[in-house]
Amino acid sequence: MRIIRSIKKLRQFVKNAKRKGKTIGFVPTMGYLHEGHLSLLREAKKDCDICVVSIFVNPIQFGPKEDFSRYPRDIKRDKFLLKSAGADIIFYPSIKIMYPPGFLTFVVIERLSDVLCGNSRPGHFKGVTTVVTKLFNIVQADIAYFGQKDIQQSIIIQKMVEDLNMPLKIKLMPIVREIDGLAMSSRNVYLFPQQRSDAVILWQALKKAKQMINMGERSSQAIISSIKKLICTKKRVRIDYIDCVSIDNLTSLRKLKGRVIIALAVWIGKVRLIDNIIVRA
Amino acid sequence: MRIIRSIKKLRQFVKNAKRKGKTIGFVPTMGYLHEGHLSLLREAKKDCDICVVSIFVNPIQFGPKEDFSRYPRDIKRDKFLLKSAGADIIFYPSIKIMYPPGFLTFVVIERLSDVLCGNSRPGHFKGVTTVVTKLFNIVQADIAYFGQKDIQQSIIIQKMVEDLNMPLKIKLMPIVREIDGLAMSSRNVYLFPQQRSDAVILWQALKKAKQMINMGERSSQAIISSIKKLICTKKRVRIDYIDCVSIDNLTSLRKLKGRVIIALAVWIGKVRLIDNIIVRA
Repeated sequence: MRIIRSIKKLRQFVKNAKRKGKTIGFVPTMGYLHEGHLSLLREAKKDCDICVVSIFVNPIQFGPKEDFSRYPRDIKRDKFLLKSAGADIIFYPSIKIMYPPGFLTFVVIERLSDVLCGNSRPGHFKGVTTVVTKLFNIVQADIAYFGQKDIQQSIIIQKMVEDLNMPLKIKLMPIVREIDGLAMSSRNVYLFPQQRSDAVILWQALKKAKQMINMGERSSQAIISSIKKLICTKKRVRIDYIDCVSIDNLTSLRKLKGRVIIALAVWIGKVRLIDNIIVRA
Repeated sequence: MRIIRSIKKLRQFVKNAKRKGKTIGFVPTMGYLHEGHLSLLREAKKDCDICVVSIFVNPIQFGPKEDFSRYPRDIKRDKFLLKSAGADIIFYPSIKIMYPPGFLTFVVIERLSDVLCGNSRPGHFKGVTTVVTKLFNIVQADIAYFGQKDIQQSIIIQKMVEDLNMPLKIKLMPIVREIDGLAMSSRNVYLFPQQRSDAVILWQALKKAKQMINMGERSSQAIISSIKKLICTKKRVRIDYIDCVSIDNLTSLRKLKGRVIIALAVWIGKVRLIDNIIVRA
């Protein structure tokens, strides 16, 4: 496994690999890896000859009051995990290399970026689509892997790839959960023990929503208010949003039909957690 | 020479060419070709194994009151010219293929898109950067060629390529002029004989600016007011803008120093013409 910090060196590596006819799988991450990230890498290893994992905490996708500076980082641990899991390259660029002074260009995606998490985090997805475009152009992968936990991000990136004719495929992989159901997230490390125990309510709420749909409930209002009630039993948990949206275009649904996403975001103390489930109504 | 209208077929062609180690040169155009376009193709033929020319009148770079529908088109003539000049592929997609219903993604470049022509044509460069990104992703060229006549466009695209790490080089080629000095442009065909004769004033104004700078003038105000006076001798010509800007970042200069662009845009009847000159002050 090689660690590459320079764009030029990564390009050289990619060029050589492509010349030999190798396919490249790419897993973009912000580091502080967990089993969710590693599941993406394992899938990439099945599909592709060479696997590149990037580690870059992207400053422009954090709002001014968000947790950029305290976002968890542990490059040594990440290196160890990625080596064990069989990554070929870690691309680990500096902020200065990714955003030199005078940086002016952004990729924006209308509408999809303004709902759900985009509503709570203005500018977040502009930062995501911009950095992902840069990384795609640098790595030139055949397939890039994203986790369903950030479902809005995945749908936005899939749409961006289609709209801008980017020459790669996007593969969406299922959420990896802790034994008690909490979706794995680098931010879980922020949680104090009592908060960690409260956090299970997200998964319980989603399971309840699925159960209601499976029992025939089709009113999103009924589902949302039922979830709300359940979450409110945990006094330390504050709801950011709960929504039932179409998987095609993320629009809120009144009547559920076809494949729908139940998505939610909550605050527990200073930690914002998200989770979702895809259900066929 | 092959004419390809489908993105999928072009991708297949490109993939095969790359597999054989061929380099690809790319000349994006809106058709109605003139010697300026052909000079780009000839340069591409010198540099690259395979030359792709795209012809696409990009609707999203035209404002609602601009000349999209009456922009000159003559695909038969273009085919003939490109075949004679040795193009390998004409990529000639439909609007529906480039912008299917539900298109949502745009590439934007701040500041550089708001000055000069961007000030007169809001949204124009957003349309340009978006379509050029799409074309770059489809053609996957090694080098793309742009003409200095649209200097702001070239600088914006160069900046976009740098900022987003697009894996290709941009080559800027000099303006090709008619015998009397008028910069070649597809829009020149709109001009009535008297307007055509008035249009020479653009080049005369730029030559005058260069002369003043060569004689030691460094005040942009002095240069601009002198040009203005000259252009105003033609009563049918209405000035849109005249500016002296830095070649690095298109900011207006008070005192000229280093490589500067004298850029101007005028209206002659319903026709908007632009021209520029790069001078070392």
